[in-house]
Amino acid sequence: MSDAVSPLAPTAFPALPPLAGVRLASHACGIRYAGRTDLLVAELAPGTKVAGVFTRSKTRSAPVDWCRQGVAGGTARLLVVNSGNANAFTGGPGFAAVERTAAKAAAAAGCAPSEVFIASTGTIGVVLPDEKITDNLAAALAKLDAAAWPQAAAAIMTTDTFPKGATRTAVIDGTTVTLNGIAKGAGMIAPDMATMLSFVFTDADLPSDVLQTLLARGVEGSFNSITVDGDTSTSDTLLLFATAKAGNTPITQAGDRRLAGFKKALFDLLTDLAIQVVCDGEGASKKVEILVTGAVSARSARKVGLAIGNSPLVKTAIAGEDANWGRIVMAVGKSGEKADRDLLSIAIGGVQVAKNGWVVPGYDEAPVNAHMKGKDIRVHVDLGLGRGKATVWTCDLTHAYIDINGSYRT
Amino acid sequence: MSDAVSPLAPTAFPALPPLAGVRLASHACGIRYAGRTDLLVAELAPGTKVAGVFTRSKTRSAPVDWCRQGVAGGTARLLVVNSGNANAFTGGPGFAAVERTAAKAAAAAGCAPSEVFIASTGTIGVVLPDEKITDNLAAALAKLDAAAWPQAAAAIMTTDTFPKGATRTAVIDGTTVTLNGIAKGAGMIAPDMATMLSFVFTDADLPSDVLQTLLARGVEGSFNSITVDGDTSTSDTLLLFATAKAGNTPITQAGDRRLAGFKKALFDLLTDLAIQVVCDGEGASKKVEILVTGAVSARSARKVGLAIGNSPLVKTAIAGEDANWGRIVMAVGKSGEKADRDLLSIAIGGVQVAKNGWVVPGYDEAPVNAHMKGKDIRVHVDLGLGRGKATVWTCDLTHAYIDINGSYRT
Repeated sequence: MSDAVSPLAPTAFPALPPLAGVRLASHACGIRYAGRTDLLVAELAPGTKVAGVFTRSKTRSAPVDWCRQGVAGGTARLLVVNSGNANAFTGGPGFAAVERTAAKAAAAAGCAPSEVFIASTGTIGVVLPDEKITDNLAAALAKLDAAAWPQAAAAIMTTDTFPKGATRTAVIDGTTVTLNGIAKGAGMIAPDMATMLSFVFTDADLPSDVLQTLLARGVEGSFNSITVDGDTSTSDTLLLFATAKAGNTPITQAGDRRLAGFKKALFDLLTDLAIQVVCDGEGASKKVEILVTGAVSARSARKVGLAIGNSPLVKTAIAGEDANWGRIVMAVGKSGEKADRDLLSIAIGGVQVAKNGWVVPGYDEAPVNAHMKGKDIRVHVDLGLGRGKATVWTCDLTHAYIDINGSYRT
Repeated sequence: MSDAVSPLAPTAFPALPPLAGVRLASHACGIRYAGRTDLLVAELAPGTKVAGVFTRSKTRSAPVDWCRQGVAGGTARLLVVNSGNANAFTGGPGFAAVERTAAKAAAAAGCAPSEVFIASTGTIGVVLPDEKITDNLAAALAKLDAAAWPQAAAAIMTTDTFPKGATRTAVIDGTTVTLNGIAKGAGMIAPDMATMLSFVFTDADLPSDVLQTLLARGVEGSFNSITVDGDTSTSDTLLLFATAKAGNTPITQAGDRRLAGFKKALFDLLTDLAIQVVCDGEGASKKVEILVTGAVSARSARKVGLAIGNSPLVKTAIAGEDANWGRIVMAVGKSGEKADRDLLSIAIGGVQVAKNGWVVPGYDEAPVNAHMKGKDIRVHVDLGLGRGKATVWTCDLTHAYIDINGSYRT
């Protein structure tokens, strides 16, 4: 745990408005951390629809297994999230702890256990002490509040140094709807999924299959396009809840043109949250945006971008404020994607430093060096092959990453 | 550049015996480094056969392109290696610099340019100042010496903290042959290839196609089974030269049973060199051996092992002497290989800490913690699925890695 807030943190938590059909509470259960909240409970109005995207890890956690079942049901009434313990790699006892939590939460909230969504983040391999949650459920539910967004975002933090939230509005066929989202990340961030936990809420009235389609698309350019350390969590969970309180025209197809604004707002919000996760990358001192163009496909461009974004040599060079484009070349080469050394061009901070396979002779190093000293690094790689493009976000690799991860568990 | 020698370095450079048909010289050309040698020249007797394995990077260096051509020819007379400049991503001018070097070296040695093998390691993106090499060739050739193995290994170092060498003998149908090898590595070490540069010499009389087959097989369990940072060099080159001076029975098939001893000696020597590269991993304080068993295939086992060995979270935990098997589970999960969470077992330092998907209740932590404080960490992951197994070697990820790579170029 780090005491210092990331230098890339926003100045303040954004003002998330109340959202009809959602009330939130946080509570300190003492699961692992002392002196802070570690439980988030969100109450969702009857009729709330849900969609979800999860880690593709083969060693996913018990709560992920639980939520995958729940998303298939399509409706949600309660979200219960704890920090401090991931309840991952805990075998049968871990899943039993989730089932007990869901049963007691369902009884307290007056819904079916299958409508309770559970997520856990923290240490792997220790069974969730679920009684610490269930003993505190009544106290938490008694505090439910439509305005408790900052508290909700804070309760789910682990090594995060700041709470992450975002809000957008959109118009669906004349009706304004709101989207609020919170996320936690920090380390073990990489596709797929790229966040450990993120929860998005909207008052729009949309069926769960439409939500699922939009969420699956939106995650590609956002949470699946960020990386901190290339490691994939066993717990990554992104849930989208729609309370149907806005009273918009019912829409049954994800491709309906009347959803264009909602889709844009959702994608924009997901990207905002994903970039906040990168800005809180463990030990991050610089945010790095990698634009890859000229690839044979968008998919190929993203893979090249992630190869660059995952390269320890690129990330340490950026930490050292060194415009070492040679390491970017190396990372393109190791991506396994189609690339021609002699067509490759690289710009750093808008200045072309390499073109057609070689350094731009006599390029002006001064603006590039000045750019490298900033907090917002931009790299543009053009492969010169096709029209595929993608943007990937990452952060630099610093001493603080080693500090945080060399002493996390003990 | 680090001044301190790796804590994992062997106590001394091994005694490599003279090898009939090979003479070596090192020289200080001032290519990038001051006050040290940066050129290795090895003269090979007429009739020397050659095989090679190279980086699969799409952005490979000019000398790699050159050597790939040369290996196709099958014979070698001279090896010229410089450190300080990789001559990678240098376009047409870079390749022209290689051609000029080869032409002048061939003239000086009295052979064809196609029999001159050239390798370069160091900074990417700067054209090799080949005149610094060619102006010093005569002086270097005047110093050729059959005993200069330690000097040869030292001349090719970049961020390496110790020179790497190994020697073996084998018997081919009653005749004893010798194998000597040198290598340089340190960072940017990962399959495929895993070393930046390695050169192996033998006095055995073997045709180039047999050498090529044996080398390609031998690299899998050695240089392709190590990783320092997951980054792949643009310059990785492994060459095997056979001078044919030993007078052994001519053998024409790689599968000939009379080659069993030679094969074992070669594989053993390659593994020795590869592990030395890991032990000089940038910033390494611990060597890590990861044995994966129970996989569906050997290939799958190796991929799981590399996922563990490349995980920054696993490597920082090991640096912090934390037996964090939860992160090993995470790395298995992200490997993309077939794995069943509930069949997974993990032992650290010979003590089983997780079995069938969960922690071994009450396992004795004392010997595990003691093991983690050592320099030689052993992790055994059994996937419980099949008979595939592989061993992968890596090192921990420490502050020193950041120091070295945050300030390499500038």
